[in-house]
Amino acid sequence: MRLLYNARIYTQDARRPLVSALAIDRGVVAAAGSDDEILHLAQAGDQKEDMGGAVIWPGLTDAHLHLEYYSLGLTRVDCETSTRSECLRRVAERAGQIPAGEWVLGHGWNQNEWTEGFGDGRDLDRAAPHHPVHLTSKSVHASWANALALQAAGITANTPDPQGGRIERDAHGQPTGFLFESAMELVEKIIPMPSVQLLSEAIERAQQNLWGMGLTGVHDFDRARSFGALQILNAEKRLKLRVVKSIPLESLQEAAAVGLRGGFGNDFLWIGSVKLFADGALGPHTAAMLQPYENDPDNTGMLFLDAEQFFEYGQQAAQAGLGLAIHAIGDRANHEVLEAYQQLRAYEAANHLPALRHRIEHVQNLHPMDQKRLAEMNVIASMQPIHATSDMFAADQYWGPRAANAYVFKTLLDSGATLAFGSDAPVEVPNPFIGIHAAVTRQRPNGQPDAQGWYPQQRLSLQEALNAYTLGPAFAAGREHFLGKLASGYAADLIVLKTDPFQMDPTALHAVLPQATMVAGEWVWHA
Amino acid sequence: MRLLYNARIYTQDARRPLVSALAIDRGVVAAAGSDDEILHLAQAGDQKEDMGGAVIWPGLTDAHLHLEYYSLGLTRVDCETSTRSECLRRVAERAGQIPAGEWVLGHGWNQNEWTEGFGDGRDLDRAAPHHPVHLTSKSVHASWANALALQAAGITANTPDPQGGRIERDAHGQPTGFLFESAMELVEKIIPMPSVQLLSEAIERAQQNLWGMGLTGVHDFDRARSFGALQILNAEKRLKLRVVKSIPLESLQEAAAVGLRGGFGNDFLWIGSVKLFADGALGPHTAAMLQPYENDPDNTGMLFLDAEQFFEYGQQAAQAGLGLAIHAIGDRANHEVLEAYQQLRAYEAANHLPALRHRIEHVQNLHPMDQKRLAEMNVIASMQPIHATSDMFAADQYWGPRAANAYVFKTLLDSGATLAFGSDAPVEVPNPFIGIHAAVTRQRPNGQPDAQGWYPQQRLSLQEALNAYTLGPAFAAGREHFLGKLASGYAADLIVLKTDPFQMDPTALHAVLPQATMVAGEWVWHA
Repeated sequence: MRLLYNARIYTQDARRPLVSALAIDRGVVAAAGSDDEILHLAQAGDQKEDMGGAVIWPGLTDAHLHLEYYSLGLTRVDCETSTRSECLRRVAERAGQIPAGEWVLGHGWNQNEWTEGFGDGRDLDRAAPHHPVHLTSKSVHASWANALALQAAGITANTPDPQGGRIERDAHGQPTGFLFESAMELVEKIIPMPSVQLLSEAIERAQQNLWGMGLTGVHDFDRARSFGALQILNAEKRLKLRVVKSIPLESLQEAAAVGLRGGFGNDFLWIGSVKLFADGALGPHTAAMLQPYENDPDNTGMLFLDAEQFFEYGQQAAQAGLGLAIHAIGDRANHEVLEAYQQLRAYEAANHLPALRHRIEHVQNLHPMDQKRLAEMNVIASMQPIHATSDMFAADQYWGPRAANAYVFKTLLDSGATLAFGSDAPVEVPNPFIGIHAAVTRQRPNGQPDAQGWYPQQRLSLQEALNAYTLGPAFAAGREHFLGKLASGYAADLIVLKTDPFQMDPTALHAVLPQATMVAGEWVWHA
Repeated sequence: MRLLYNARIYTQDARRPLVSALAIDRGVVAAAGSDDEILHLAQAGDQKEDMGGAVIWPGLTDAHLHLEYYSLGLTRVDCETSTRSECLRRVAERAGQIPAGEWVLGHGWNQNEWTEGFGDGRDLDRAAPHHPVHLTSKSVHASWANALALQAAGITANTPDPQGGRIERDAHGQPTGFLFESAMELVEKIIPMPSVQLLSEAIERAQQNLWGMGLTGVHDFDRARSFGALQILNAEKRLKLRVVKSIPLESLQEAAAVGLRGGFGNDFLWIGSVKLFADGALGPHTAAMLQPYENDPDNTGMLFLDAEQFFEYGQQAAQAGLGLAIHAIGDRANHEVLEAYQQLRAYEAANHLPALRHRIEHVQNLHPMDQKRLAEMNVIASMQPIHATSDMFAADQYWGPRAANAYVFKTLLDSGATLAFGSDAPVEVPNPFIGIHAAVTRQRPNGQPDAQGWYPQQRLSLQEALNAYTLGPAFAAGREHFLGKLASGYAADLIVLKTDPFQMDPTALHAVLPQATMVAGEWVWHA
């Protein structure tokens, strides 16, 4: 056994929320209590660790991220540099580390941040003459390719601009290497996908970043390749994150044909829900709204599937033992999804099927008439607090007064709904303390919009935010009896914090970082 | 901890093959040793069990059965009765237990055993006037349906006999209820499939039968419904058998699309190989042979897929992380499969893919040129010893001197191949002691064919047969570090025997039945 003592441990166990010591046996909490109680259990050979008064929380779970894209993103050269030459230096460095002919991929440049601006595209050939290079801009609306990359893509002076895109050309008509909008796809489509084995290695490295931010679990919304890579890590006991794997709608028929059901797997990797999309997003005005966007009177966004279609898929999924997780941003999209869930709950009951852990992903704008329905139907609100503070100005602008219905954490919680918080990484950083800060303050780290935060009535207490990163995701994943608490029989997944977030100015929460992270009773990360 | 002592424990651990005591902690063997060594570990609260000198073996695994068909078979009314009236009584009894309108299914009658012969088919209406009834004969070449079953199937005086079948009719042309050959399908095709939930209940009941025979694990070759039912039991912790689930070839594409790989799952249920068929069977002369059947000079059987096709599927499966398990009976079929495996091993090596646990199911007739190749390529020989004794007279008759190449257990073992034994239940009974007896004696329980057994040079020692029910299946399933032995870190799956098979006349081995069975440290069955 491993005994941790002299700590301030928030157990999330209502019967005993605060203890000072834990006994951990084979990955599981054997007992939680006072130092006296726990040290009394010590036997020869047990390992006692004085935590020096540190604070311990259960490990946090990101209930919505894209593990494949996040992990592969980390393998890219970071070109979010203050100078253009530093970006080129990093590209050259990476090229020096890998065999000639392999792709160097990078991301994050912004010519407006560089005194040189775009500069001469050919500089990229000089930085990496023997490797095809493709660097996407921070906005992901432009990219920078070197000569070998252009050549591999077959882009020459004679290549016409694709629809919706532009190949920048010099005075002689030769491509400079800068590609805009859909022209980027000419290169992207020929970049080889990494093998599942290589992807597993990228995920293994990403796992370290996630531990370092306080995450011990994630709900992954990427696809079959990510699942395959995770199984490789799992089989080799290198997966030390609790991963719930969703199944994309396009694989529902296949999953049903194979007979794969929700919940199948083991303590580190198991099957979650089927992921569907109801609508687009706020920024491009494609989220489906009941009324038009502000100053865009003919546009109510795009609804990809309606309630009848969701109900149809939901029945198929329920028969196959799978719940649904439906991306819904606009109030119309959320309404359609809720209509479908109402039918589906009736269907489950009529057919003696279990009430599955259905979820809505994002739940960004919820019409007042729908705000109590998630609780009424026990549908999980899988939300990303950082979206609220990232998007608040856009929400005000595009939704006007309807922004009052956006990211309504507190309203949902008070109605009795289960909140499961995440980041949507790599769209946003997966750091859960940035999410906690956003949920508690409804402000950006820089203090915007003001001392009270954006729609401050939707702020959560720190305890409520913590629940949404622990108990909520555990419930959503059907593992509420094993994950999310530090109580007897629960997984020994925890993080060690130097200062107590509960005794901190909430505006500082975004800067919290763990000192150490434990998964299944093993220290997997130290600051 | 649970401490078993005063036993004669065959551990299958070469370092310490015979001990008298085990310490078991949370489903796993913590230590194996002498009574002194193990009882010395006892702490307050530990449970000590004096085994009274009983023999303990690791739990046995059936490496090839059909769990769905076996389990559903057990739910049928047993009509293998000495009198016709007893069969009718059982049908009436079952009908009394289930709601009117639900099907009563039965199996096993043989009119030659009944003094009344077929008798009046209408008796079945009197036995169960409110339930459709369908009873298949022991040969499965005929069935007996009552009026409600005929009506549900739309069989009337006007229904023509289907091709290859006959609807028996009385003097007035009315169907009597007896259906022969393909006419049975008219009823079978309209019998509703039980729900996955009901199937899970049937498997749970079948599990008890399997424990009672000494099985603690099975390799299931049924399909998606069986997998779904097993997941339901697994999720509810009602599955206490170690089940390796194969995937049928028809689901290979789906499994690859979902990203499901071999080995995924948990300690009770995990994914095995993709099941394919190379040929038919010995009895109907459809097993693919290199030379014609004896006295059937134009017939070499039927080859469903050849080496190139197996190699093609094998590459797809290997890319998806799945091995192959190929049904091959005839020497031609086995040869094609081995040719494919040779290419596949080279493909795995060239593509830096792991060498998967490929298997041949049945391996019934192996040309001398191929008999060393399984060992050379580390291909598992998944065989059913009871097929040898069931089929030996047919093998002599249809294969002549080539029967010397049939069921060559000892030749394969001496070449270094891994044997994994099973029953092919419900084709044969899954009792592993009947299989052990067949492997050790090459005789039927009645002593046929003679004191030495059939091709006695292929007899195995009891230890070799035991290995093929423990170590072999564990290796085939990729769990050789967790299953098949009673050593520290291995699953506490074991059976208790009153008398020691190693000190028994081998001809009595078929009658051995365990006194008790433990799975994951729990007594799940007592005689």
